[in-house]
Amino acid sequence: MNDFMYYNPVRVHFGREAMAELPGELEKFGKNVLLLYGGGSIKRTGLYDRILADLRAAGKNVFELPGVMPNPRTEKVYEGIEICRREKIDLLLAVGGGSTIDCAKAVAVGACTDKDFWQAFFKDWETAEAAIPLGVVLTLPATGSELDKSSVITNMAAHEKNSYDSELTFPRFAILDPALTYTLPKAQMVNGIVDTISHLYELYISPPDEECLTDELAEAALRTEIRAARAAAVNPEDYDARADLMWTSSFALCGMLNNGKKTDWASHCIEHPISALYDVAHGAGLAVVHPAYLDYICLDALPRLRRLAIRVWDVDDAGMTEEETAREGIRRTRAFFRELGAPATLTELGVPAESIGRIADLTDLGCFSYRRLTREDVVSILKTAL
Amino acid sequence: MNDFMYYNPVRVHFGREAMAELPGELEKFGKNVLLLYGGGSIKRTGLYDRILADLRAAGKNVFELPGVMPNPRTEKVYEGIEICRREKIDLLLAVGGGSTIDCAKAVAVGACTDKDFWQAFFKDWETAEAAIPLGVVLTLPATGSELDKSSVITNMAAHEKNSYDSELTFPRFAILDPALTYTLPKAQMVNGIVDTISHLYELYISPPDEECLTDELAEAALRTEIRAARAAAVNPEDYDARADLMWTSSFALCGMLNNGKKTDWASHCIEHPISALYDVAHGAGLAVVHPAYLDYICLDALPRLRRLAIRVWDVDDAGMTEEETAREGIRRTRAFFRELGAPATLTELGVPAESIGRIADLTDLGCFSYRRLTREDVVSILKTAL
Repeated sequence: MNDFMYYNPVRVHFGREAMAELPGELEKFGKNVLLLYGGGSIKRTGLYDRILADLRAAGKNVFELPGVMPNPRTEKVYEGIEICRREKIDLLLAVGGGSTIDCAKAVAVGACTDKDFWQAFFKDWETAEAAIPLGVVLTLPATGSELDKSSVITNMAAHEKNSYDSELTFPRFAILDPALTYTLPKAQMVNGIVDTISHLYELYISPPDEECLTDELAEAALRTEIRAARAAAVNPEDYDARADLMWTSSFALCGMLNNGKKTDWASHCIEHPISALYDVAHGAGLAVVHPAYLDYICLDALPRLRRLAIRVWDVDDAGMTEEETAREGIRRTRAFFRELGAPATLTELGVPAESIGRIADLTDLGCFSYRRLTREDVVSILKTAL
Repeated sequence: MNDFMYYNPVRVHFGREAMAELPGELEKFGKNVLLLYGGGSIKRTGLYDRILADLRAAGKNVFELPGVMPNPRTEKVYEGIEICRREKIDLLLAVGGGSTIDCAKAVAVGACTDKDFWQAFFKDWETAEAAIPLGVVLTLPATGSELDKSSVITNMAAHEKNSYDSELTFPRFAILDPALTYTLPKAQMVNGIVDTISHLYELYISPPDEECLTDELAEAALRTEIRAARAAAVNPEDYDARADLMWTSSFALCGMLNNGKKTDWASHCIEHPISALYDVAHGAGLAVVHPAYLDYICLDALPRLRRLAIRVWDVDDAGMTEEETAREGIRRTRAFFRELGAPATLTELGVPAESIGRIADLTDLGCFSYRRLTREDVVSILKTAL
């Protein structure tokens, strides 16, 4: 097992009554609250009214940053930073999924420096020295951002999608009520499931290959995600299935599954320029890229992919070669994404063949694990996904 | 899935180089440090010298509380509290296993109140309002105390072994170097493994019974613990096996496996008066009590014990009834403890038949789960373990 440091101070309130914990959390922070949210679905569901009532009952001065988009952009972060400085914001309350939370994290550190947040943190990776506290009410299980310290922001002008992390941007609290996900549009739900599986793969399909607790835990999470996704597809109001989907996506990125592992974020690195260039949903992009990537590195990662096939996808490998077993696991991954209704090709995503070179140019090649990728490897992978 | 709150702010440094993180941690705290340790094995191994060198290099004033015994006692806690008050201690540094850490936690809260620590916290369960910060260097994987907020202290005069927990007693940091366990006496190692399995059982063998992530994670931890215990028995210097044993025992009690579960601490509750009355090692007591308890509640917990047998002990249930499968899992648990060299009967522990009534009188009956236990149930369970 490789050495590791593990630290995660997020306080999680999970379940049917989790929202009842919001007033107690609000008491811990100052009076000026900036509420960040997305496209307005929280107004339709009544969640906005409920949270606003809690904020008012707690005597808060409420400011708002609505309209945080998927693949949140620098412009929105600058907007939030300006409000924070002007209104002396004491708490950021992000209500939504990973995009809203990631935007709030960037605002949290950006508002506490005189420097340009993009250049200082997302380009130069300077260490943040202060951040406005952040709380989360999660409505979309997918990115795990509610339980991690990372933020991913897109700079459309530069065609860059970069990440930053700081212990100061761990949420102080995260409220997770699975019932809030009943009304999610199917495509968002599916993208969230693909994103979660992809995170679990990036952690699990990486060295070292010997037995260890972390790998057993990752397999447990993968089996749970697959089972719950199928149950929620049959009955969208299956509470236990929704609970497992929500908690598994959070657990996936809480840090436990990094412990002792090299990890391999190649699929995410290849997908990032696709969503930066074409604004496709991150999960949809991953559904196309990840299986293509695994088929490409199959021979380099043979024992691990064989183990994935057997332990996660229940492949009976009697009479099969190691490679046949490994490929069958990848085939089942692809079939599962298709079963959910996720896109399977770049063409379905609206990404033309001519753009492959450009995507490869923009791919960060530093996140590989079993095999060092070149620009040409990325081109080859994407060609198999057309 | 039941609602839950999860919070665990311990910073873990794990691995071969984990000790190198101690100086950085020491910088975060004030000058006066109380070093707590047990019977002196850390002097024989050189660990004491290394830590003292780090403390001196960091410019600390070092005070010592040596001789913390297994089943740590109130007297030792009072001794520590007195030093803390007199010397204005800024940091408690516990070097050892669960006994040393538990003693340090009691000192941490006890030194910050004018009340009697035993009465206020371990009897009246008052909420602690302050605690001296605590750091840990772990030498014995077993209790998980390095990653939780609980402390168990024995009052020999009252024949009571009580527990207390407070978020203020989470260690600020925990240094876990598996190589430090190479030199552990076999009996301590075995007791630690039994304690860990028992913790995992108390969490896993409890309602609800439907599928959920937490149960999958517990099964993963159990399989890891069993595999690693066997590997370490063959080769005590198998680093990866020692690493899995250390990390699994910590993970078991970090709180992740409580999430959504009722939990069932009946075996621990029956064992506590045994160690309070006879000062037997906690793990040794559990090796006797836990299988006896499971056989007693087998019919009440049938689906769960059947699942344990199949998923953890690889029982092939073809042609077996549900009860036969469940009992086979318990039989394999008992056989595994025996294979490790743990005691199997009260007689081996030196606990006479005449004491059974007394033990039952002192057993806390509030921690059951599948079946409400009476004093007579406890007597019956212990009789089967003679």
